[in-house]
Amino acid sequence: MQELLPAEQAVFNKLKKSIEDVYRHHGFMNIETPIIDRTEILFSKAGGDTEKQIYKVIKTDESADDADQALRFDHTVPLARYVVQHENDLTFPFHVTQIGRNFRGERAQKGRFREFYQCDVDIIGRGELPVAYDAKVIAAVYEALKTFDLPEMQIRISNRKILTNFIEILGLSDKATAIFNIIDHAEKIPPEQTTQALYDLGIPEDNVVKITTFINTHGTPDDVEASLQSIIDDIDNFQEGLSELRTVYELLKQSGLGRQATIDFMIVRGLDYYNSTVVEIFLPEYRAIGSIAGGGRYDNLANNFTDQKLPGVGVSIGLTRLFYILNQHELLRTNSEKPIDVAIIPITDNEHTFALDLANKLRTKDKSVDVVLTDKKLGDKLTYASHIAKNAIIIGENEVNSGTIEIKDLETGTTSPLVI
Amino acid sequence: MQELLPAEQAVFNKLKKSIEDVYRHHGFMNIETPIIDRTEILFSKAGGDTEKQIYKVIKTDESADDADQALRFDHTVPLARYVVQHENDLTFPFHVTQIGRNFRGERAQKGRFREFYQCDVDIIGRGELPVAYDAKVIAAVYEALKTFDLPEMQIRISNRKILTNFIEILGLSDKATAIFNIIDHAEKIPPEQTTQALYDLGIPEDNVVKITTFINTHGTPDDVEASLQSIIDDIDNFQEGLSELRTVYELLKQSGLGRQATIDFMIVRGLDYYNSTVVEIFLPEYRAIGSIAGGGRYDNLANNFTDQKLPGVGVSIGLTRLFYILNQHELLRTNSEKPIDVAIIPITDNEHTFALDLANKLRTKDKSVDVVLTDKKLGDKLTYASHIAKNAIIIGENEVNSGTIEIKDLETGTTSPLVI
Repeated sequence: MQELLPAEQAVFNKLKKSIEDVYRHHGFMNIETPIIDRTEILFSKAGGDTEKQIYKVIKTDESADDADQALRFDHTVPLARYVVQHENDLTFPFHVTQIGRNFRGERAQKGRFREFYQCDVDIIGRGELPVAYDAKVIAAVYEALKTFDLPEMQIRISNRKILTNFIEILGLSDKATAIFNIIDHAEKIPPEQTTQALYDLGIPEDNVVKITTFINTHGTPDDVEASLQSIIDDIDNFQEGLSELRTVYELLKQSGLGRQATIDFMIVRGLDYYNSTVVEIFLPEYRAIGSIAGGGRYDNLANNFTDQKLPGVGVSIGLTRLFYILNQHELLRTNSEKPIDVAIIPITDNEHTFALDLANKLRTKDKSVDVVLTDKKLGDKLTYASHIAKNAIIIGENEVNSGTIEIKDLETGTTSPLVI
Repeated sequence: MQELLPAEQAVFNKLKKSIEDVYRHHGFMNIETPIIDRTEILFSKAGGDTEKQIYKVIKTDESADDADQALRFDHTVPLARYVVQHENDLTFPFHVTQIGRNFRGERAQKGRFREFYQCDVDIIGRGELPVAYDAKVIAAVYEALKTFDLPEMQIRISNRKILTNFIEILGLSDKATAIFNIIDHAEKIPPEQTTQALYDLGIPEDNVVKITTFINTHGTPDDVEASLQSIIDDIDNFQEGLSELRTVYELLKQSGLGRQATIDFMIVRGLDYYNSTVVEIFLPEYRAIGSIAGGGRYDNLANNFTDQKLPGVGVSIGLTRLFYILNQHELLRTNSEKPIDVAIIPITDNEHTFALDLANKLRTKDKSVDVVLTDKKLGDKLTYASHIAKNAIIIGENEVNSGTIEIKDLETGTTSPLVI
């Protein structure tokens, strides 16, 4: 688990706040789902590695009335349950944001946390949800990340329909899950290992070559269509996926993100519930750190809970991991400022009421103010103040009688009259 | 678990934000501790009912390297561990706030939630922490609650040293835990049941009378001292507790809370770790709902982890329960406003780029803006807009060509030129 000191926490909170603001500006409404949910709901859509990582919870004092429960591993599965449950009280397409902690029992390793913040935007339609909405969530997440002042970002988009069709045409549908998994990990290992992994599945050489060519296909919609045509004779089956990719790409261009967006068939995403658009955002200069945000389209996520069609699309920023990575690479604007605006130091108890009164006046001006209560000597109080505060005000008998107050900048040492 | 619709969540978030702001204004620094912690740490200080309510967590895919883990039931126990672990990086007295969810497997009942927000302020000293700090956390919590525009609030304070001494003088120390528990529940049941519960413990009549008189003792420090003297001949042993109560009471008076503060020996608090000041805040007009905030002094909480003395004091607002109660009693300023400031409706795809551009301009003015993408008819788009937004802007060919844009107030129906 990541645990921060107050100064680091302040930076983390600032990033979280700027994500919240951008999501709100883009018209997403905040909700919070419970952290503990029924196991049957959470397990219905996890799949793969994730299923093994789910934390179950049990009461110390077990009682028979409790269903099997577990901790959510993402925001999307509880959201599907939420939308079904509250359907009649929501306006569709439902634009929603969730920011909070999720839980996965991953193997302990650097930069991976078992308890981590995710900052999601999702749009859920009723009956239908045009593919244009996919671009809307991607743009909102990109704009949120832009507030971090990161190096250049790249938006890599694929579409699972194309990948699924491709594997079907190669006659490898029975190995689809294994192939998805190999592609999902392809970027993190040398190319020859990926090739070997495909051979290990018993795939013949010509198809292995086709798959590796496919994986390395990227560029504009025209580029990838041409590349597909060079691998497969008849690409009629790919038209739905290609047309969706074109729509998303065009809309991102209209949102001013044409330079950042690229189609890239190496993008798959690990979770089972995606069925169409998939997306990951990267820092090309720091490709080794992996994606800093990701998501996609899940048209069937709610179908365990309802017959109603509730297609959705969502993208999430993994803030805990991103914060760790940015810190490691010194890409965070850290804050060396002291957390408190003003420390007010009453010299004796006689000035206490006056000091508290002054503190309350400054607080109405949005200042954070500490009235230093310790019964130590003035020097000790000043030392304490200099550790936590930008400014100090000393209140003695003179200040109470005259009402004239000076404020000392603890950084520069300069003193000036306080004007409230 | 409590799960809110977006409009309710917005009210909840506003309350949470105003608590955060007041805590910050009062000089408390925010931290976050993990939700999952080692069972041995959490169990070390739970005691009583709470211990039975702790949720343990286990990984689906169990691995031997994991220690026993559980979900935190409050913020105070993880804070004690945090302070010991990061002691060398903190400035003492450490003024800290934690706002987040805690977990207790309570019996299902109305208004009690197993997953609930607590909003804590705590001050931890190193070596010593003068009792004056107790007033500081109480005042911060009172000021935070004041922003809710609640009916009159009452701050009821007691001191466990007095209660402990009292039970000792009566020769009932072996029954202390049971008596604490009876007093803690006394307000929620008829007085004769409390009396009966004391008799059931085998306490003789004269002592039962003394205890019930004690429980009903409240008023100024002078009042309660006089009342104590009427029950017990020699109150020398009570001087330490009484003197602490006087200090807290006087400081609250200096903070302008003299009218709200009262000493009240019925206040005990349920958790084991309090050893001196205990406090609860009530709405006298709604006494049946119980306390809306509570806390106290815990001088020995860290002593499971360190030999260093790290005395602390903290008070917490149980926001999830408070929100539920205020809602039930219609004491919340609910927000019937639509969540989105402006819905921009492009008539055709040709106006889409223009609409997105306009949206981004409005977003830089802190407006929440939704560009309505649905491929439905204009009437349907307007219906959607009227459900979610305060204002609508329609963008057609004319608007794009002329650059003259009108904004419609969806509440009043009036239209005016848009000025950015």
